[in-house]
Amino acid sequence: MNGAVCVVTGGLGFIGSNLVHHLVARGSTVRVVDDLVAEHGGSLHNVEGLDVSLTIADIGSPEVADVLVGADHVFNLAGQVSHLASMHDPEADLQRNTMSHCRFLETIRRVSPQARVVHTSTRQVYGRPLRLPVDETHPANPVDVNGVAKLAGEQLHSVYASAYGMRTTSLRLTNVYGPRQRLDSDQLGFLPVFVRAALRGDDIRLFGDGLQRRDCLFVDDVVDALLTSCVEKAVGRVYNVGHVEDHSLMEIGELLCKLADRGGRVVVTPWPEEHGRVDIGSFRSDCSRIAEETGWQPTTTLADGLARTLAFYEEHPWFLSPR
Amino acid sequence: MNGAVCVVTGGLGFIGSNLVHHLVARGSTVRVVDDLVAEHGGSLHNVEGLDVSLTIADIGSPEVADVLVGADHVFNLAGQVSHLASMHDPEADLQRNTMSHCRFLETIRRVSPQARVVHTSTRQVYGRPLRLPVDETHPANPVDVNGVAKLAGEQLHSVYASAYGMRTTSLRLTNVYGPRQRLDSDQLGFLPVFVRAALRGDDIRLFGDGLQRRDCLFVDDVVDALLTSCVEKAVGRVYNVGHVEDHSLMEIGELLCKLADRGGRVVVTPWPEEHGRVDIGSFRSDCSRIAEETGWQPTTTLADGLARTLAFYEEHPWFLSPR
Repeated sequence: MNGAVCVVTGGLGFIGSNLVHHLVARGSTVRVVDDLVAEHGGSLHNVEGLDVSLTIADIGSPEVADVLVGADHVFNLAGQVSHLASMHDPEADLQRNTMSHCRFLETIRRVSPQARVVHTSTRQVYGRPLRLPVDETHPANPVDVNGVAKLAGEQLHSVYASAYGMRTTSLRLTNVYGPRQRLDSDQLGFLPVFVRAALRGDDIRLFGDGLQRRDCLFVDDVVDALLTSCVEKAVGRVYNVGHVEDHSLMEIGELLCKLADRGGRVVVTPWPEEHGRVDIGSFRSDCSRIAEETGWQPTTTLADGLARTLAFYEEHPWFLSPR
Repeated sequence: MNGAVCVVTGGLGFIGSNLVHHLVARGSTVRVVDDLVAEHGGSLHNVEGLDVSLTIADIGSPEVADVLVGADHVFNLAGQVSHLASMHDPEADLQRNTMSHCRFLETIRRVSPQARVVHTSTRQVYGRPLRLPVDETHPANPVDVNGVAKLAGEQLHSVYASAYGMRTTSLRLTNVYGPRQRLDSDQLGFLPVFVRAALRGDDIRLFGDGLQRRDCLFVDDVVDALLTSCVEKAVGRVYNVGHVEDHSLMEIGELLCKLADRGGRVVVTPWPEEHGRVDIGSFRSDCSRIAEETGWQPTTTLADGLARTLAFYEEHPWFLSPR
C-alpha cells in the first residue's frame, strides 16, 4: 500500500477511519469521502491530525468522480447501518445502501475501471440462520430493510465484476467493535451500547435470555481483512469476515463489566417489540473461504480486543459525550 | 374470487392482463394500476372490452393509495423485465423494481394492511445455477441489475410479512409465454422473439449452441399459480413457479417452426457480447414447495401451450405490428 492512491468511502466512520489510520501509517495517499449524515457513525475527530484529502459528499453524487481519478484501491465502506432506522425510513436506507452504490459503481466504471474495489457488506444479509456456522452459500433472507438494501448493494458489486470485468470484492462483516466507534447512539449495534455502559459503570441490559451468540470481531482484524482482500484471487468474490470464537451476549457483557471494573452488572430484560421483530437468534460465520483464498484470519481474541477498546476510550473520553 | 376486490399492478402487461381476464370472468371487481412505460409490455388493447377501473400511475406514486382502499387481493406484477435495459440504465431498474415496490408496500401497510398480496419475482434472482433443478434454498446470485433489483423487491415483500404481519407471497416465475405478450420487442425474453419469428416465417436465431434448457410456462398456469397462492398457508412464503418439463432452446424453436408451418427454420449464431455476459446456461425449477403447500401444478404441456399461443396471435395479428 506504500505510495498507493486509496479512496475510502465512509472514511470518517468507525471502520473507515481505522482503515484510514492504517493506510496513512503504511504510506498510502488517502482520499476520504464521507457525507457525515447526522445519525451515522462519522466524525471529523476520527481522522484528526492525519494528512488526508476529504470530500464531504454522498458517494452517488457527481463530485465523487474527481476523487476517483487515478485511484489504485477503493475501499467502499459508506452506508447506513441502523436496522431500526431502515424500518422507520426504508426509502432512505435503499437510497444510501443500494441506489448510491449503483451510482458509485457507474462512476468507478467510467473514471477508474481498473481500480481494486473492496466493499463492506454485512452478515445481516443472511437473516435468521438455518444452520451454524453460516457459510457464503447459506440463503440470504434478510429480516429488515437494511439487510435487503445491503445485499442489493453487495450484489451490484458482483454484477459489475462479472458483467464489466471490474475488480470488486465484498466482505460480509459480523459484529465489529473497537476504537472510534460512536458510543452515543443506540442504533449502531449492541457492542457500542455495551461498551458505553461498561465505561460509565451502568448496567448492561440484555434482551431475551442473553444466550444469543455472536462471533464479534475487533476492528483491526477487519482492517486486515480489507487489505488482505486486495489480492487478485479475491476479485469477484464475496467473503464472510467473522471470528472462530463465539460468545453469548451474557458472556460478552460480563467480560466487559469485569474489564471496565466500574460497578456495572448485566441485567436481563424482555425484548422491546420493535427489536424482537428483527432478532435473528445466534450467529456464527464460517470464514473458511476467505482463509483459503487470501490467507486472512482474525488474530485478536475477544478478551484482548475488548481490553484494547476500553483502553482507547479511557484515553479519548469525548466519545462518551453526545456531539 | 367472486365479488372480491382485486388490485392488479402491471395489469395492462402480459401476465397482468391475462390475470385480469380471468378475474373478471370469475366475478371479481378489478382495479388495474399500470404506468404504461413505453419499453415495457403494457397495452390498453390487452384489457379491451373488460369492465375494470384503470389508474395510469407508477405503483410508488401517492394516487395509488385510493386504489388500495378496500382491496381484498393485491396482485403486484408491475416491473421492468428487460435484462439488457437494466444494464443500460441500472438506476431506472432499481427505481421501478425496488424503490417503487418499497413505496407501494408502505402504502398497502397504511391503507390496506389486511390485503392478501401476491408479488411476481423471477427465477433470474438465482443467476447461474449451481445445481439443477433449482429449489428456493439455492443461493441467489443474480448476474444483472434486473435480478438484483427484483430480488430486493421480493425480499421487501418478505420483510413486510415478517416484521408487520402483512400477508405477502412472492412467486419466482420461470420463462412465461402465451397470449397478450408483446411481440415487437427483443428485450422481453427469448420466447416472444421466437413466437414472432415463427408467425412471420422468419428464421429463429439461437445464441450459442441452442442446447441451453428452460422450463417454460404457459401464462394460464401462471394465472392459476397467482390465484392458488392466495391460500393462508402461502403467507410469508416464496415459491418457484416453473414446469416439470424442460426443453432445449433448439427443441422449443423447432417445435414453434413446425407448429406455425410458415417456412422458418432454427439457425445457430454466436453470442452477441452483451447477451453472453448475462447468460446463465440451463435452468430448471424445482417447484415441489408450492405443490406441497398450495397444491398448484402446471397443467399445460409446451406443445399445447405453444399451439394455443400461435392460435391467439393468428386471431389478433396487430400484436405483430409495432405500436
